[in-house]
Amino acid sequence: VSAQSSWVSGADGSGFGLGNLPYGAMRQPRCAPELVVRIGDKALRLSELAGGGLLDLPGVDPAAFHAPNLNPLLAAGRDAWRATRERLTELLAAGSTEIVDSGLAERALHELAGAELLMPVAIGDIIDMYSSIEHATSVGELFRPDEAPLTPNWRHMPLGYHGRAATVVVSGTDVVRPWGQHAPAPPDERPTFEPEDRLDFELELGFVVGGGPPMGTPIQPEDAAEHIFGFTLVNDWSARTLQRWEYQPLGPFLGKSFATSISPWIVPLDALEPFRVPNVPQVPPPLPHLRTDEPWGLDLDLEVELTPGGTGRGEVITRTNARGVYWNPAQQLIHAASNGSLMSPGDVIATGTISGAEPGSRGCMLELTRDGAEALTVGSVTRTFLEDGDTVTMRGSAGRGVDLVSLGEVTGIIVPRPSS
Amino acid sequence: VSAQSSWVSGADGSGFGLGNLPYGAMRQPRCAPELVVRIGDKALRLSELAGGGLLDLPGVDPAAFHAPNLNPLLAAGRDAWRATRERLTELLAAGSTEIVDSGLAERALHELAGAELLMPVAIGDIIDMYSSIEHATSVGELFRPDEAPLTPNWRHMPLGYHGRAATVVVSGTDVVRPWGQHAPAPPDERPTFEPEDRLDFELELGFVVGGGPPMGTPIQPEDAAEHIFGFTLVNDWSARTLQRWEYQPLGPFLGKSFATSISPWIVPLDALEPFRVPNVPQVPPPLPHLRTDEPWGLDLDLEVELTPGGTGRGEVITRTNARGVYWNPAQQLIHAASNGSLMSPGDVIATGTISGAEPGSRGCMLELTRDGAEALTVGSVTRTFLEDGDTVTMRGSAGRGVDLVSLGEVTGIIVPRPSS
Repeated sequence: VSAQSSWVSGADGSGFGLGNLPYGAMRQPRCAPELVVRIGDKALRLSELAGGGLLDLPGVDPAAFHAPNLNPLLAAGRDAWRATRERLTELLAAGSTEIVDSGLAERALHELAGAELLMPVAIGDIIDMYSSIEHATSVGELFRPDEAPLTPNWRHMPLGYHGRAATVVVSGTDVVRPWGQHAPAPPDERPTFEPEDRLDFELELGFVVGGGPPMGTPIQPEDAAEHIFGFTLVNDWSARTLQRWEYQPLGPFLGKSFATSISPWIVPLDALEPFRVPNVPQVPPPLPHLRTDEPWGLDLDLEVELTPGGTGRGEVITRTNARGVYWNPAQQLIHAASNGSLMSPGDVIATGTISGAEPGSRGCMLELTRDGAEALTVGSVTRTFLEDGDTVTMRGSAGRGVDLVSLGEVTGIIVPRPSS
Repeated sequence: VSAQSSWVSGADGSGFGLGNLPYGAMRQPRCAPELVVRIGDKALRLSELAGGGLLDLPGVDPAAFHAPNLNPLLAAGRDAWRATRERLTELLAAGSTEIVDSGLAERALHELAGAELLMPVAIGDIIDMYSSIEHATSVGELFRPDEAPLTPNWRHMPLGYHGRAATVVVSGTDVVRPWGQHAPAPPDERPTFEPEDRLDFELELGFVVGGGPPMGTPIQPEDAAEHIFGFTLVNDWSARTLQRWEYQPLGPFLGKSFATSISPWIVPLDALEPFRVPNVPQVPPPLPHLRTDEPWGLDLDLEVELTPGGTGRGEVITRTNARGVYWNPAQQLIHAASNGSLMSPGDVIATGTISGAEPGSRGCMLELTRDGAEALTVGSVTRTFLEDGDTVTMRGSAGRGVDLVSLGEVTGIIVPRPSS
């Protein structure tokens, strides 16, 4: 792979060059939210291109380019996604003068510095999977030390649960520390209700779904790519003390539902094609309806930086790669639709915590600190879980140099609940 | 309580008289979906009333009456709900001639027979609780026979999980039998993937939320009524074999996500005021943030009718009452928001299966047949779980005679997955 050049200055090699072209939503002062595509450090305003007649594409309703988010384009389907991407690539490639000749360059290319980025997608349903075997094994050991860490179903299906769509927020949104019940500490017989004391992050990838077949009809493995639009970084903030007390028998609920942060950019699957790698070998092999022949592993480097409150100095506390995730995105989607459940444009499916096998590659504090038993040293301070004022920033990218494709970052600072 | 009369013929005593006035969504041929209120066997078209100048209410944006569903009115808040209800009561009360005098009677009052009813609400997030102690105890006994049926957390909080909003459908929608994994049957080591063999219904109530405080801020017990708009019947279809295999450790997922049916009418909390009864005594008393002083029990009679496929003859197979539900609706809402989670207009919180203590009052087949061990006789046939062609119809109502307030019904027929 070798990336094409763009005429937009600074784009080549920035991670947001011609090979990426991720979608986001932006709002300028006194303006409505609008759909944009990132190129270098600029936002390309699709409504301006469409208004100027540069996005007249057969089979694509231009209303999708005047929308406040990605949802109408998601609903338009893969042919529309591909046509739009090809046209944008053409317009932004080195040598193309169409945007400049149309007199649109100034209005259509907006500096990202200072722009307000919004949720790129109006999320319908969000599913959180449990697809890293390293993570599932660790959590099993910590939460259920007397049992086998993996439940008997784990190797037969990508386990998951529905999260809360209303509390998915875009990178940069403050995260209010949740309150919750803490299990009774003997000899107390009653739980307490207080600020969560084991607040955690979870490093995840999520993909945005562009709809599916009618309700009652499953998705075939070979059709998965028709329905997977693109990827984003996900921080699935987690309240561990609350989670442990509440999660039996109905699964995670309030321990997760208070906030989930995503990066502002949805990187198209098409941009990640060069970084698709073979699937993780699965033993036993999955049932036929979950078998994926195409390579669905994603060679994406991921890292988490923690900046303890008041220090102003962050350190990367974990580095891992998405290629090791046991259940791949296609399997996650196929499984979620296998019962006939409807997939809608704007649904999101997240991987669950992505952890590597080594200590420095664990995707959450629960694992990094062995549930608080081994504090992390970050600069001059230590942390077992997140304190108020701490900032967590996740980053992801594929490739290097001119071929770099960045997922951008998702960041958030922990703040205490306002007193009432 | 004694109900007022309406001038609309047939309304008094029908369960949809002046004391009810539930909201729904209707579509006429070649028309857009529209918001209506049921009176007797007619749908009152709010857009016609508003267009005719009969719904000019201080503080209520008339756009809410021209909407395709209840969501804009939900977002307008309790004062708007109350003002609208008072005005509709005034317009429909015996002696009022405003609608007739305005020449709107014919256009504004549409016969329900033959009308297409749609989802009354665009659901944001749906939560399914587990708030009947009789149901939770039975399921615990059947699913975890070697453990205490109630987990240690059960009496301290209303347990719940997020369901799938995309697959909530209105009464009358066919329910396609899900396929799913069945646990390995020794000596087999692998699960199978096949049509669910233990398809079940769950008798529930749900309430529609009209938003809440900003993200990060909980709801106080005394404010719960400000955020609870009204109630609907919910059939939380359940695939028991799949559910049992998948639900540890992340809770119900595909065993529930294939379909949830609701009745077409949202009965306002205001209509149920006369039927609010004292809360179920709770031992131990809940933590202070979950204490509700107001009576939040609901004296609502509920029943389930099963019509086996091909018989054309239904029988009521369970009768119960919602007043016995351990965790009340206010507690469910307060708990769901207690961690700071955002509540949005259009969110739905369902009770979970409502079961009484007696054999004939169980809210699902799992309990009625003791997981298939004791078949039910329905007319000339027997059933352990639902067969293709079976129809399940749930009904709910409060009061009697002229004071009857009906929740209407939610019905659905089981059909096999179409062959591909």
